[in-house]
Amino acid sequence: MKIKKLGEDHIIDKIRETFRTGHPRIIKSIGDDTSVTAITEKRCLLLTIDSLIEGVHFKKDYTPPYYIGRKAVSISVSDIAAMGGTPLFLLTAISMPEDTDFELVEELYRGIKDSIADYGIHLVGGNTSKAESLSITTTLVGEADKHKVVYRSGAKPEDVIYITGTTGDSALGLEILSEEGIAALENVSYREAVLKHLNPVARVGMARALAEKGLAHAMIDVSDGLVRDLGHITEQSNVGAIIECERLPLSQEMLDYPRNRDHKLWLALTGGEDYELLFTSPPEKKDAVELLARRLNIRVTPIGIVTEGKGTKVLDRGEELAIDTSQGYQHFVS
Amino acid sequence: MKIKKLGEDHIIDKIRETFRTGHPRIIKSIGDDTSVTAITEKRCLLLTIDSLIEGVHFKKDYTPPYYIGRKAVSISVSDIAAMGGTPLFLLTAISMPEDTDFELVEELYRGIKDSIADYGIHLVGGNTSKAESLSITTTLVGEADKHKVVYRSGAKPEDVIYITGTTGDSALGLEILSEEGIAALENVSYREAVLKHLNPVARVGMARALAEKGLAHAMIDVSDGLVRDLGHITEQSNVGAIIECERLPLSQEMLDYPRNRDHKLWLALTGGEDYELLFTSPPEKKDAVELLARRLNIRVTPIGIVTEGKGTKVLDRGEELAIDTSQGYQHFVS
Repeated sequence: MKIKKLGEDHIIDKIRETFRTGHPRIIKSIGDDTSVTAITEKRCLLLTIDSLIEGVHFKKDYTPPYYIGRKAVSISVSDIAAMGGTPLFLLTAISMPEDTDFELVEELYRGIKDSIADYGIHLVGGNTSKAESLSITTTLVGEADKHKVVYRSGAKPEDVIYITGTTGDSALGLEILSEEGIAALENVSYREAVLKHLNPVARVGMARALAEKGLAHAMIDVSDGLVRDLGHITEQSNVGAIIECERLPLSQEMLDYPRNRDHKLWLALTGGEDYELLFTSPPEKKDAVELLARRLNIRVTPIGIVTEGKGTKVLDRGEELAIDTSQGYQHFVS
Repeated sequence: MKIKKLGEDHIIDKIRETFRTGHPRIIKSIGDDTSVTAITEKRCLLLTIDSLIEGVHFKKDYTPPYYIGRKAVSISVSDIAAMGGTPLFLLTAISMPEDTDFELVEELYRGIKDSIADYGIHLVGGNTSKAESLSITTTLVGEADKHKVVYRSGAKPEDVIYITGTTGDSALGLEILSEEGIAALENVSYREAVLKHLNPVARVGMARALAEKGLAHAMIDVSDGLVRDLGHITEQSNVGAIIECERLPLSQEMLDYPRNRDHKLWLALTGGEDYELLFTSPPEKKDAVELLARRLNIRVTPIGIVTEGKGTKVLDRGEELAIDTSQGYQHFVS
């Protein structure tokens, strides 16, 4: 059986089955944004690993290496953030063909350096290898108060579902980049969306504040697409969800984008790599969530509600949208 | 400038320069087997990242995927061991073509599972991605007593240089595998050497005991080849070294191998991936080192001595061997 027939989720399920484990220090293993392991009575370690691969996650012809470096850092920081943790120490494994220009390597590392400076984290280890194509794997270590970590599994019926920022912009940016190549970076009409794709910024401050104040029951960062990532929350929380399309926060660029409404909704619902926070919060904390968002100057939008039962219903003007909720970017499924 | 002209060491130096960092919790950053960061007053975290890449570190046609899984774990465990630490939590990032058979993935994970069970460590996170070829990156987290970590930089003139086990067998095994393909696994004459290459075993117990008892001034695991790894110790310790070829511990398989002495010395001095421990220890601790080795039933051989000055002299029957001490496996140098 070829893995493209099985899909990434199936593989991850298999792995989880294989590695059921009973170490007393493991609080959460595979199946959330990061693993959670106890360090002391009060603190825990958050560990995450991610890869960016040429031809899969980026194409060299429209991705400046500087941004590959920045993004490699941000996607890992975003995972630590989504647990409500503080990112600390980074390790990178970079593979590349031996005829790679050293200037590319320097640009890649310049991106890493600027990005870790922005997040206040530190590179403590690395590995470089020869390979047929360019790829970068990042491991990030973070810490959190053991009792304040926010899991995917905590959502409760009647919780309000929120998303930060706007949704679908990274996918929009990718469309523009695919059409226009590197020139897209100079296209003022879509500059924000293009940068959202090339240089997403992890919502560390907002996530930590939500965790610190106990405002989120469940949280995830949107990497696989809104509907699919919400699916991770609902499955692990054993609940259902209703999303209303009219509520989805769309950027001005998305609104101005000359494609039909269906296509825009598709981008907003299934487009990956926005690295926004998707979280659920009890209705009585609505004022506190909004106050926090205003104070941090971050847009937060309630887009639906957690329900009993299973599955995500996507409502568009009261009608249920026939959207396959397993959609969104999945490796190994064509 | 293409990176193959520069070489891996140059790239690592550049990275180290770029990422000089001052976080108070970072005790050791890039430049040892692992990074070392403080967790508590007494304990520290050891972090390491490594990749195994198809066509570079292994060829599919003579490497059963089960052993790729085992080796990916062992090479990381070996790094933690070389610091004198206890390996704890593993993360893996696996990339592969979408037409990979699921059986291969299962075998790979079976290897990982058996290996982590042997070492008593736990898989806590993972990532799977599509890619053009198969590769696996492992991050391992370990812990150690902050005051007992053994660095590369601690060697002192007059220290005795020891190596565990035998040297060059992994390179010998690789030669046999390259010539005979997968059938080499059934070749009883070289089975041990072939397995040393496919399934190296990290010397965790020995390394921890050396650290615990304060018997090693400096330590490294032999991954790039004896001479080159010794070079890492001498450079960082600001010392020189003399190695005597007659003292090198060779396996019976190496002795029986029908190639001339020069070739065997070449394998023993520059062959990588033995994952034996190379350490230096003051002469007055010789008895304690030997007693420990006997108790753990591990061969330990004094192969030379640390000197003032710089560079490694390799003596063969009293004559200096004209060996380029930067030799050994290096990425990006053809």
